[in-house]
Parts: sequence; C-alpha cells; structure tokens
Amino acid sequence: MTDELAAKLDRLESRGLIEDLVSNYCHGFDKRDYARFLAIWWDDCVWKIGPPFGDFSGHEGIHQAIHDVLWPAWAQSQHVTSNLVVEFTSPDSASGVCDVDCMGLLTDSTDATFVGATYRDRFERRHGVWKIVEREVVIHHFNGFPGTRLTKPETE
Amino acid sequence: MTDELAAKLDRLESRGLIEDLVSNYCHGFDKRDYARFLAIWWDDCVWKIGPPFGDFSGHEGIHQAIHDVLWPAWAQSQHVTSNLVVEFTSPDSASGVCDVDCMGLLTDSTDATFVGATYRDRFERRHGVWKIVEREVVIHHFNGFPGTRLTKPETE
Amino acid sequence: MTDELAAKLDRLESRGLIEDLVSNYCHGFDKRDYARFLAIWWDDCVWKIGPPFGDFSGHEGIHQAIHDVLWPAWAQSQHVTSNLVVEFTSPDSASGVCDVDCMGLLTDSTDATFVGATYRDRFERRHGVWKIVEREVVIHHFNGFPGTRLTKPETE
Repeated sequence: MTDELAAKLDRLESRGLIEDLVSNYCHGFDKRDYARFLAIWWDDCVWKIGPPFGDFSGHEGIHQAIHDVLWPAWAQSQHVTSNLVVEFTSPDSASGVCDVDCMGLLTDSTDATFVGATYRDRFERRHGVWKIVEREVVIHHFNGFPGTRLTKPETE
Repeated sequence: MTDELAAKLDRLESRGLIEDLVSNYCHGFDKRDYARFLAIWWDDCVWKIGPPFGDFSGHEGIHQAIHDVLWPAWAQSQHVTSNLVVEFTSPDSASGVCDVDCMGLLTDSTDATFVGATYRDRFERRHGVWKIVEREVVIHHFNGFPGTRLTKPETE
Repeated sequence: MTDELAAKLDRLESRGLIEDLVSNYCHGFDKRDYARFLAIWWDDCVWKIGPPFGDFSGHEGIHQAIHDVLWPAWAQSQHVTSNLVVEFTSPDSASGVCDVDCMGLLTDSTDATFVGATYRDRFERRHGVWKIVEREVVIHHFNGFPGTRLTKPETE
C-alpha cells in the first residue's frame, strides 16, 4: 500500500515540477533571465517555433534563438500560459499541451502585438530532474493592435 | 495514519483531475476536438451560457450548442482559464470557480472579439471518474476590438 | 518512510493552498467580495503596488487601498494570473512569483485598459493557515486600448 501511495505522490510531485518548467519558460523569456530559461531544457532538446522565427536544437540552438532572434525581435513581452494537461507515458516521461496568450512589443513597431498559441511538449526525468525534451509552438494568431501602446504607468 | 494520508492524496489527485476538465473544455472547444469536449460532461449535465447563446442540457444539448450554435458563430477562438478554486462538498463532489479570457473571431466580423467571463461549476465523481455536472457562464464583457485582426504569421 | 511521505504530501497541499490565495486575490478584487479579499492577507501584511496607486500596510492599509483607491478607480476589472512558481524556504514559509493580465475599465475612461504585471509574494503558514505576508506588484505596461469598450453582451 505504501508503494502505491508513494507512486501516486511521485506523480503529483512530477506534475508540479512540469508545471514549473512551463512557468519558468515565461519568467525566463519575459524577464530576460537566461539562466532560468536555459535550465528548463535538456541539452538534446528541440524547440520548434516555426514561422516567423524557425526551429532550434540543443543548448546552442536555444542560445541562438534567444540572443540572435527572439530578444532582438521583442522589445518586451508577457506570456500567460493556461490549460496545461499532462499525460504520463512512464514515471519518467510525459507529454503536455497548454495554451498561451502573449502581449508584447516588437522592436520594429510602436503598436502592441498580441499572439495566441499552443505549446505541445515532451518532458523527461533524467537522474531525478524533469526538463523539456521538445516544445512545438503552434501559433494561432499573431497581430498588431493598431493604435495601442505598451508603456509603464507614469509616476507623479 | 495511512488512511488519512490516502484521503489527502485522493483530494490532491481529484483537484488535478478537475483542473484537467477545466483545461480540456478549452482544448476541446478551441481545437474543435468534439470527443475531448464531450468527455468532460456527465450525460445529465447543464451548460448555462446565457445570453447571447442560451442554456443547454445533456449530451444532446452539448451537441446542439457546439455544432449548431457556437462553432458556427466563432471562426476561431482561444480560451485562457485562470484562478481555479475548488471546494469539496464530499470526496466525490465539488464546486469550482475560475475566470477566462477569450480572444476570438466571430464569423460575421473581421475584428477580433474579446470576452471576459467567470465559470461557476459543479463536479461529480461517479464510478471513479470526475466530470462536470453543471457549468454556469457569467459574461463580464463581450466586445469587438475595432481595427484588429486575428491571423496566422506570414510564412516566407 | 511514512514521515517522508507525510512531509511531501504537506508540501503539495501547501502548494495548492498558496495557489488558492493567488486566485482569491483576483476573485475578491474583481467580484468586489471584500471578505474573500481580506482573508488572504496576514494582519501585518505589506501590499506594494507602487505607481500609480502606492503602497499599503496591514488590514487597515488593505481597506484603504480597496475602498478609497482601487475600487473607486476601476469600474470593472478581470485579473488572469498565470505562471505561479512557489519556492519553500521552510515548511511554513515560501516565496512566489506569478504574472497577471488585467483587462479593465477605469472610471474616468470609456476605453478598455490593459495591464500586464508580475506579483512577487511572500507567504507564511501560522497556526496551520497560509496567508500572504507581502505582495510586490511590478507593472510592465498599463495602457488604454483606444476605441475599445468593455460591455456585457446584449440580451434579446
């Protein structure tokens, strides 16, 4: 009985740690904390962003995507993830699907840009640590909002 | 002691399974996966959407709402749910409240439409399976965003 | 072994209760349920909202912020929180970070206002109850969306 409880508990803990990966993707990306962002990916990972940004492999690919492509393209961004559903294929591997709303400001624009997408992920636990093996981004819409801005509140 | 641990663990597992129902409502609806959507509802369910769409009962009502009313009305949509709070009234029944932002495109419009709402739910576990008995939708705002569009990114 | 299981289970339960605090902040604020809102704060709390609203201390400060400043400023609002990451510093204390999208209507405006922010929190469990000791709000953007409205759907 204790073995069964321990297995259920392990599943719940894993679910929480996977949710942390999904959250830290956003915190790392939006707050420009590269160490936090990199720590969610296995070194043989694949990040399939697709158009307009491309696909990237391994920690080298993550570095290139972030420093050469994405952070230069976005002056600021806020990703809000939701609807995470995790399905375990073994105690140490799982797939996930979640949705994201992203409001941001492209460096070549003055209007806010709004993106809606779905992430399809594969997670693995190796030596007791959960990280992302693959994230595929399916973008549903990617549009400027004419006449809007994204600025901090004015201080008196 | 093990009985108490098992009861706590059951509560945590139930919380996760209820969260999956809330997430799969969005995945099923937005990705037009009817099997996934239908699977979250008990066959004696009530889905109180209210104006402008109406109320629906049972799996027949779900079918009608989805195929005759909602999917024809929305060309595309993305629901992002948040703030889920679950209160258990017994080991096998619970109420929930959560909020949703929905960005979508009505079939009769070219502008994006943004909806903010709250879901008030009742969940029941029958024969070991959690599903929704009742979902009431309270819509706070439902507006077009003039001049905006919802389109995929252009591929080179 | 049972002690270790019990400790892990306690951590998972605490994570859920902390998530409820984050959710009830939104439900209490947006649905104007002051009892629900106040119940998430310890009586020696600090709520650092910063510009344009200010900082507030204790239950008296919460009362002032809500009734004299924020509810008068916002005719309606919907906060959607996401990306909650909780780090425990002891079994009874934790820090958290999460993001929020807020769509609302300021009382002095007819256009929708969209806010993106991050909450940095400290939580403590006292006599078995988790509440917020400190919430710092970091606002990333706070802008009107010209030409948009926030209204309920019309009833036939």
